[in-house]
Amino acid sequence: MYSKRINDFLKSAGIGIGDIVRIVSKEHTYEGELMPRSEAGDDNVVVIKLPNGYNVGISFEGARMEKIGSGERVHSFPKLELKRGGSLPRVSLLYTGGTIGSKLDYKTGGVYMLLKPEELFYEVPEISSIADVEPINLMSIASEDMSPAEWRVIANAAEKAFEDGARGVVITHGTDTMHYTSAALSFMLKDFRAPVVLTGAQRSSDRGSSDAFTNLIASTMMAAKSDIGEVGICMHNSPSDDLFSFIRGTRARKMHTSRRDAFRSINNSAIAYAKLDGRIEYKSEHKRAGRSDGAKAITGFETKVAIVKAYPGSAPDIIEYYKDKKYKGLIIEGTGLGHTPVSTTHRGMSWLPNIKDAVESGIVVGMTSQCLYGRVNPNVYRNLRMLSGAGVIYCEDMLPETAYVKLGWLLGNYKREEASTLLNRNLVGEIKERSMVDEFLV
Amino acid sequence: MYSKRINDFLKSAGIGIGDIVRIVSKEHTYEGELMPRSEAGDDNVVVIKLPNGYNVGISFEGARMEKIGSGERVHSFPKLELKRGGSLPRVSLLYTGGTIGSKLDYKTGGVYMLLKPEELFYEVPEISSIADVEPINLMSIASEDMSPAEWRVIANAAEKAFEDGARGVVITHGTDTMHYTSAALSFMLKDFRAPVVLTGAQRSSDRGSSDAFTNLIASTMMAAKSDIGEVGICMHNSPSDDLFSFIRGTRARKMHTSRRDAFRSINNSAIAYAKLDGRIEYKSEHKRAGRSDGAKAITGFETKVAIVKAYPGSAPDIIEYYKDKKYKGLIIEGTGLGHTPVSTTHRGMSWLPNIKDAVESGIVVGMTSQCLYGRVNPNVYRNLRMLSGAGVIYCEDMLPETAYVKLGWLLGNYKREEASTLLNRNLVGEIKERSMVDEFLV
Repeated sequence: MYSKRINDFLKSAGIGIGDIVRIVSKEHTYEGELMPRSEAGDDNVVVIKLPNGYNVGISFEGARMEKIGSGERVHSFPKLELKRGGSLPRVSLLYTGGTIGSKLDYKTGGVYMLLKPEELFYEVPEISSIADVEPINLMSIASEDMSPAEWRVIANAAEKAFEDGARGVVITHGTDTMHYTSAALSFMLKDFRAPVVLTGAQRSSDRGSSDAFTNLIASTMMAAKSDIGEVGICMHNSPSDDLFSFIRGTRARKMHTSRRDAFRSINNSAIAYAKLDGRIEYKSEHKRAGRSDGAKAITGFETKVAIVKAYPGSAPDIIEYYKDKKYKGLIIEGTGLGHTPVSTTHRGMSWLPNIKDAVESGIVVGMTSQCLYGRVNPNVYRNLRMLSGAGVIYCEDMLPETAYVKLGWLLGNYKREEASTLLNRNLVGEIKERSMVDEFLV
Repeated sequence: MYSKRINDFLKSAGIGIGDIVRIVSKEHTYEGELMPRSEAGDDNVVVIKLPNGYNVGISFEGARMEKIGSGERVHSFPKLELKRGGSLPRVSLLYTGGTIGSKLDYKTGGVYMLLKPEELFYEVPEISSIADVEPINLMSIASEDMSPAEWRVIANAAEKAFEDGARGVVITHGTDTMHYTSAALSFMLKDFRAPVVLTGAQRSSDRGSSDAFTNLIASTMMAAKSDIGEVGICMHNSPSDDLFSFIRGTRARKMHTSRRDAFRSINNSAIAYAKLDGRIEYKSEHKRAGRSDGAKAITGFETKVAIVKAYPGSAPDIIEYYKDKKYKGLIIEGTGLGHTPVSTTHRGMSWLPNIKDAVESGIVVGMTSQCLYGRVNPNVYRNLRMLSGAGVIYCEDMLPETAYVKLGWLLGNYKREEASTLLNRNLVGEIKERSMVDEFLV
């Protein structure tokens, strides 16, 4: 919202966001489209988008403004058609929503979803020279509203894309929960030939600083050309456009609310790095792209699974609550090497009896660390051994979010005993035996 | 545990952990104290501690072992007395437990607490030349069992130490929850003259690789000499012993389960770096050490506060649960910029009605991000504005753990309205207005 003063003026002059205005300040005259106040901007500075696409902020103090055209003219795309066919590798692009498929709504200042995912390509004609891209409008869901139901739909769509002959698959997705979806697809999808690449944007595509188009190019390249036979996330590796990383789906985590390079590979180096000129450098062991005529989606998922964080002062009743609600699995985000409070001096604050009871009643309880980096280990301290002795499964170097998704998937497709056994065994690269010294904060 | 084969042999030969043994392998003969199996080691490799203090692993295959002395000889400390008095700055050392005050119990392979905290100093006579250290045996509590009750005891002890004339205070503490305690002390302690320094160890003091002594030296130096008037954590800044960081208590987080440099400063650079030669380099703005005759501990704490994590598939009933349990405050660890599921397509999965209801019933609800780095912002997306409109307080760039501690402290000392207003206002450096580009993953 602009300041009251500016708003009052706009109202009285009949000027709305999106209208074309002329602003005459002491030094300059500007003409362009009136934008809503920029996120971090001074509320006495008017922002307009110039015809060259750049935004400028002009102090309202001492400036004159008049309306010279009306409209709701959203940043317009040249109407390019995607070139199809030819000898390029075929890539299916599954569109699911999120910032990469959204633009600023100049009326409300909020962000809205694109009507047609094809619009995404209007600004990246380069894509046509990398792959024969088939856009599929799967859903239009904000990242925060993704759930196991959507994971299943996406997994089935990826299966179908491979069966229909795609070489690789790109999935555009909101960034907030992209790593949960990438973990889910890592477990759900089997026997596919080339990578399933999730990508998104931290800035909407109408902004000059948008990472939407470069992420799309790098991801399409990965899907079309890389030798990786895994699910992963491909986004900026640094704030600039020079390097993109492909992170294993079970190792990725959004570690920053807004940076373009927010996704990091935890406890494992990125699988590969890509440059926009087409070079791909492989960094860590991975499953190779191979021969397969299709793919198989195994999409069972037990939704009665939860993440429980343990911290000083956290009451163990929460375990009882989930037991009463008939939950089948719990992933504890413990402290350090995998602790919960077990003190006997604070009455009722030890988690041990509640955890024992939960395990005895058939709930699978896994332990991860809220440190995120490193691995849990039940063998160092006495208190840890008590938890482990109560039947808690220590999940090695697996991320809490990945362990949650894995346990839901296991309980949805296997009997309890088997799910319990598989929880801390490596299935798709989510666990490894030894940690490397240089895998911290990279 | 060693392999069954080794265990059977030890049993039959009457050899126990801690006994002095001679092992004759093909190439060498070793004599030393039999150790438990090393954490990551092969279970067919016997570990002994040589008289020089180093451990060696010897393959049991083809080796002969005999007992040449019995005992439970724990790595012995030279009995140094701490020099007291003189003209050096006086530093109170509050001992609370944790790995820094623990040693391996060779009988069980677990770790036990030191009986006398003074033992800590037997190996660091250097301390006597830095400060006039007064060790105070406050409690012996494992990190995971710390709770608001202990925070209060520690805050009161720190107050007393300053009143008794201490220039600075060092608190030895388990590492797992040290950042919760440092946040609590940051809010609880007022008007003290020089730093309150929490420190600990990632390796127990009987191990050659222990960081206990170097952390203790750096922390004592900070407490005795630095110009910082804040609560903070001082530990290794890198895996080697060359640099130690002093991190503001509300910005610290344990980011690795086992590395010596596990503690990182989130969304703010470390306040200062120290070297063991006594040099201190200041890096960011901080409250200066000043004149004060004592300190004031304001230790009210509302324990009916919880952290709630939102993620795909997370059911909003959890909010209802805490409401039923008469909780007064909730800190949500949302996704990205501060989201929870708000979808209307999945019946009963939107958090919005439950959050609205909680706020209306008087619960203070704060929003933080599980990304950890960056800041929440309710103004970018429509869904966020809905949450903000429901009365959720967006906690800027504050860590979830810090927000939890802050809310408990606020509700323990202020009326609801005031606590609610103060939650996203900066009190002690836990929030700042602008994020710096280089404060990611350092």
